[in-house]
Amino acid sequence: MSNGGKKSNKQAIFSINKEENFPEWYGEICKVAELADVRYGVKGFTPFLPWSTMTMNLMFNLLEEVLQRKKHLPMLFPTVIPESSLTKEADHVEGFTPQVFWIKEFGDGQELEERLALRPTSETAIYPMYSLWIRSWRDLPLKRYQRCSVFRSEVKSTRPFLRGREFLWIESHNVFATHDEVLAQVMEDLETTKEVVTEEYGLPVLTFKRTQWDKFPGGLNTYAADSLMPDGKVIQLPSTHDLGDNFAKAFDIKFLDENNETVHPFQTCYGPAISRIFGAMISIHGDDKGLRLPFRIAPYQVVIVPIFRGTDEDKVMEYCRGIESKLRKSGIRVHLDDCDATPGWKFNYWEMKGVPIRLEAGPRDMKKQQVVLFRRDLLERKSVELDGLAKRVRNLGKEIDKNLRAMAEAKFEGLIVDADTMGGISDALDQGKIARIPFCTIEMEGLACDEEIKDKTGGEIRGTRTDVEELPEGVCVVCGKPAKEIVYVARSY
Amino acid sequence: MSNGGKKSNKQAIFSINKEENFPEWYGEICKVAELADVRYGVKGFTPFLPWSTMTMNLMFNLLEEVLQRKKHLPMLFPTVIPESSLTKEADHVEGFTPQVFWIKEFGDGQELEERLALRPTSETAIYPMYSLWIRSWRDLPLKRYQRCSVFRSEVKSTRPFLRGREFLWIESHNVFATHDEVLAQVMEDLETTKEVVTEEYGLPVLTFKRTQWDKFPGGLNTYAADSLMPDGKVIQLPSTHDLGDNFAKAFDIKFLDENNETVHPFQTCYGPAISRIFGAMISIHGDDKGLRLPFRIAPYQVVIVPIFRGTDEDKVMEYCRGIESKLRKSGIRVHLDDCDATPGWKFNYWEMKGVPIRLEAGPRDMKKQQVVLFRRDLLERKSVELDGLAKRVRNLGKEIDKNLRAMAEAKFEGLIVDADTMGGISDALDQGKIARIPFCTIEMEGLACDEEIKDKTGGEIRGTRTDVEELPEGVCVVCGKPAKEIVYVARSY
Repeated sequence: MSNGGKKSNKQAIFSINKEENFPEWYGEICKVAELADVRYGVKGFTPFLPWSTMTMNLMFNLLEEVLQRKKHLPMLFPTVIPESSLTKEADHVEGFTPQVFWIKEFGDGQELEERLALRPTSETAIYPMYSLWIRSWRDLPLKRYQRCSVFRSEVKSTRPFLRGREFLWIESHNVFATHDEVLAQVMEDLETTKEVVTEEYGLPVLTFKRTQWDKFPGGLNTYAADSLMPDGKVIQLPSTHDLGDNFAKAFDIKFLDENNETVHPFQTCYGPAISRIFGAMISIHGDDKGLRLPFRIAPYQVVIVPIFRGTDEDKVMEYCRGIESKLRKSGIRVHLDDCDATPGWKFNYWEMKGVPIRLEAGPRDMKKQQVVLFRRDLLERKSVELDGLAKRVRNLGKEIDKNLRAMAEAKFEGLIVDADTMGGISDALDQGKIARIPFCTIEMEGLACDEEIKDKTGGEIRGTRTDVEELPEGVCVVCGKPAKEIVYVARSY
Repeated sequence: MSNGGKKSNKQAIFSINKEENFPEWYGEICKVAELADVRYGVKGFTPFLPWSTMTMNLMFNLLEEVLQRKKHLPMLFPTVIPESSLTKEADHVEGFTPQVFWIKEFGDGQELEERLALRPTSETAIYPMYSLWIRSWRDLPLKRYQRCSVFRSEVKSTRPFLRGREFLWIESHNVFATHDEVLAQVMEDLETTKEVVTEEYGLPVLTFKRTQWDKFPGGLNTYAADSLMPDGKVIQLPSTHDLGDNFAKAFDIKFLDENNETVHPFQTCYGPAISRIFGAMISIHGDDKGLRLPFRIAPYQVVIVPIFRGTDEDKVMEYCRGIESKLRKSGIRVHLDDCDATPGWKFNYWEMKGVPIRLEAGPRDMKKQQVVLFRRDLLERKSVELDGLAKRVRNLGKEIDKNLRAMAEAKFEGLIVDADTMGGISDALDQGKIARIPFCTIEMEGLACDEEIKDKTGGEIRGTRTDVEELPEGVCVVCGKPAKEIVYVARSY
């Protein structure tokens, strides 16, 4: 990073075989690329450093742009939730209480009148206010979201970004007059996931309706997107929930409909955890040399490295500054690395940090009014004309993003294999694949069958696909009853 | 706000004499303009609604732009601080502990190994990590900031934005090899305040060096900007602190200097509380009809109100949509209000919300290829050509911002009056002015004199000016010792 023109003792070279040793790769890249520091001293809480913070801010901005275009407006609720609100919806409290951090004291041993929870999610903070704000059908639909951090005392082991006790997300909370609008909102949320997570961040996903035992506590149904990590496990990226009118009833949200009758509205919530998606994004796009950030979300889209040969330092710097200023004016995020390290050190450093495009310029390039252009995704270098550089960089940026996405999508090919025995499932999972199986039911009665699958294969049911219609044939792999659905089994984060 | 094309039962008309009854004006505008809702149910914690959230986001963006231009990079630390870190600097812990919220329990009655504080400010979270990150002079200067919320169990009565138990800010934490750089950073921070708070948000400030008894706990010196509220009280907008090497010593931050010696660095921190500045901004710019938002930070810079007269609805809407799209393309934040309320209702509503420019367009305007343009600051209307509208709007936006700032600055004129008796101070304060007085000293020995001033006049010493050099004459108003400085006394928030 820009640091007063001095290179410091940062590490520039990174080399770990990602496919062979993904956990080590992940831990090391977080450290060496200065993404997070695990030495904070409170289990599961991790400072996010500039490189990850800047990237996540850009990720947030793209997501917020789409949400606002779709008429969701931002708001911000307090971080604390009074216990009496948190415990109003019975299933919800049962689902979340084990993970809640509680505040009871302040100052020198004074006690609060009521315990406050650090929000694990904000339904119970927001919906009491919704019950005050919503009066008439004219107030609906109400579409609001907030960008904030949430807190859960995870029992599983934590990892920076992927699983922390404090993470960053957007939670969108919507209220509708009818349940049909809820279903339409759920589909819009899944579409938003594809628009942002896949098209902007380059991460392919499969979308599922989750089983009844794997849904949001207090909701009717959960729908979610799964992507694939390098170790063959799937990871849930955003999920969206059909809350029915359960929360409206628990929080006394009512409105006067067009027939002048007082009724409960229906609700959805949607929670893209940007810090987690960031963790998945670096894992999926990264390679053995370090990060490969998509052009759309790279804090520096271009880094310029001046090459000095002897006495032309001032002229080369001037040439590079001209390039920098031209790119910046055209809206490209550019960094001129003028620190006192060698060009080779800088090449390695910025490759490891994942900057999509590097420009090198020395006396010879200057003479020819050229610049050497290096693309991080393919590790390719070539000389290009100075003329029209900004446009070329922007086009190349798009090409790089397309290529990163295509490489991620290639991993999905042949990923899904049919299985109709427990052994078939295990074989698929052992090869890092997802098993597609006939299954009795994703209603609660199917839970025992899923547990048997989990015990015997280490995989779990991700649900039924929302993007393709699938007709079940045959019998449930576990209980042998007629299959009511086709579900997918995978090992997961 | 855009709400599915229906007007709902929102209030459109606002009318309170701000000068005569500022507290009532403030409470009402927060409610009617949908800025904050005080009914959340936890004292001092207030949800921020879309209109204030969007404005504050724009305020944050402008501030972050300036910080990043000045080479400060964003990062994000955890919300919780382990007690052992919080209590490492003796004065700091004494200053902040009375206000800290503590977390000790999680889940169903489990206890944490160590109590965690909700950050009241983040020195004690960040500096233990700085002690790991900083090794050599090559790592300096280190300039980092974070955008986050902080928590203080205020004993004073709370008010939305102006004083809350959770508020939004940026805190910038910088480390330097020398104390001279610290002083330069302090001046840069005061300059940033003027660049952002005055030039972008339109709020004039006076900048002071605070007294020794009114400084940041644990620091050497505090410098701060004060602005003036409509009730004649001053309000501290950002403050910046010269921490000397106190925290470096407490947190064991050391580096190897260019002579290969291990020494402690020097530090500054700077904390612009955007939610508080937002509260001051709406107070200072607002008028009896409601908010007047500066063009630079208004969520909607322009609202378009279609005027239907009989049968031309579709054509008028098309005309308005054309205007909307042209303005949006040129980067202006524009909202076309197509809800089913009357034009008069919409005029009142958006005036109350403070949108700087309103455009009205009906069949007659359409025929003449014109639009009626209304500016909120002066409540003036006139017809203008459609041709060149975007440019006209942008220029008018600048003019509005200049005008709002000039009106706020006019309040500063004749504000400062000289006094050399206790009665003179009281008279000045009773007229809503600031008294300029000779004073013994802003070192600790002056505390008793300040306390006497506070007791007798209700005012307090804001410190010595940083922007003008002032030679003291005569004797301290209180103790009669020779005056060592000229200080300013005001009633304050």
